[in-house]
Amino acid sequence: MGAEVLTDPAAPTASACLVREVLDRVGDKWSVHVIHLLGGGTRRFSDLRRGIDGISQRMLTVTLRGLERDGLVTRTVYPVVPPRVDYALTPLGETLLETICSLVAWSEAHTTDVDAARARYDARVDGAAA
Amino acid sequence: MGAEVLTDPAAPTASACLVREVLDRVGDKWSVHVIHLLGGGTRRFSDLRRGIDGISQRMLTVTLRGLERDGLVTRTVYPVVPPRVDYALTPLGETLLETICSLVAWSEAHTTDVDAARARYDARVDGAAA
Repeated sequence: MGAEVLTDPAAPTASACLVREVLDRVGDKWSVHVIHLLGGGTRRFSDLRRGIDGISQRMLTVTLRGLERDGLVTRTVYPVVPPRVDYALTPLGETLLETICSLVAWSEAHTTDVDAARARYDARVDGAAA
Repeated sequence: MGAEVLTDPAAPTASACLVREVLDRVGDKWSVHVIHLLGGGTRRFSDLRRGIDGISQRMLTVTLRGLERDGLVTRTVYPVVPPRVDYALTPLGETLLETICSLVAWSEAHTTDVDAARARYDARVDGAAA
């Protein structure tokens, strides 16, 4: 029935679709890492690369370009040799910082819980396969 | 110098590496969408599929399996025909909900800002290429 579809809480709305686009960026794991590090102040590309375990040069470049395009991060190039490029949060990026820090804090607080859950799940799956 | 490396705020630590693993899950865009929808209550697979614009059946399956393994989501299979499978947040998953909702709320509040920033960036890049 049409009415049922309209009132289905899981049905996508136009607003939800717009939000998804933004969320796709800010809910991207590499963006979370970059914004969190930039919360500590301006960083050079090499600082970010070193601070984010497992990110490739290419992926960091793509992530920073996306964040710059979204208006969350500024990129400042200094005309020196070798070239120096600084990244920092914009005022808009700063408004996201509290949420990102809360996400990182949750991860820090619950690493043990998640580790234990994974061990239980893997034991169950291995048991079922045996 | 060794001391400099140790005090570099951008240097990864053992704790940061553990956290990264957890953050890789909870900072994944599809996981954010799933947790947010499950915040509204138990959902069937088809509800989630319909509620998350652009997710494939395969990607939803992988995301749910990861969240179940991390102890954030339960999967309940009912022995009926056709099979019915319900997903819900665990108590651990519930502790993440506030942060996830804050991320979604930020996205809702700043969609226009991000859209405007993208338009400015694209105009600048197009201008530079012309």
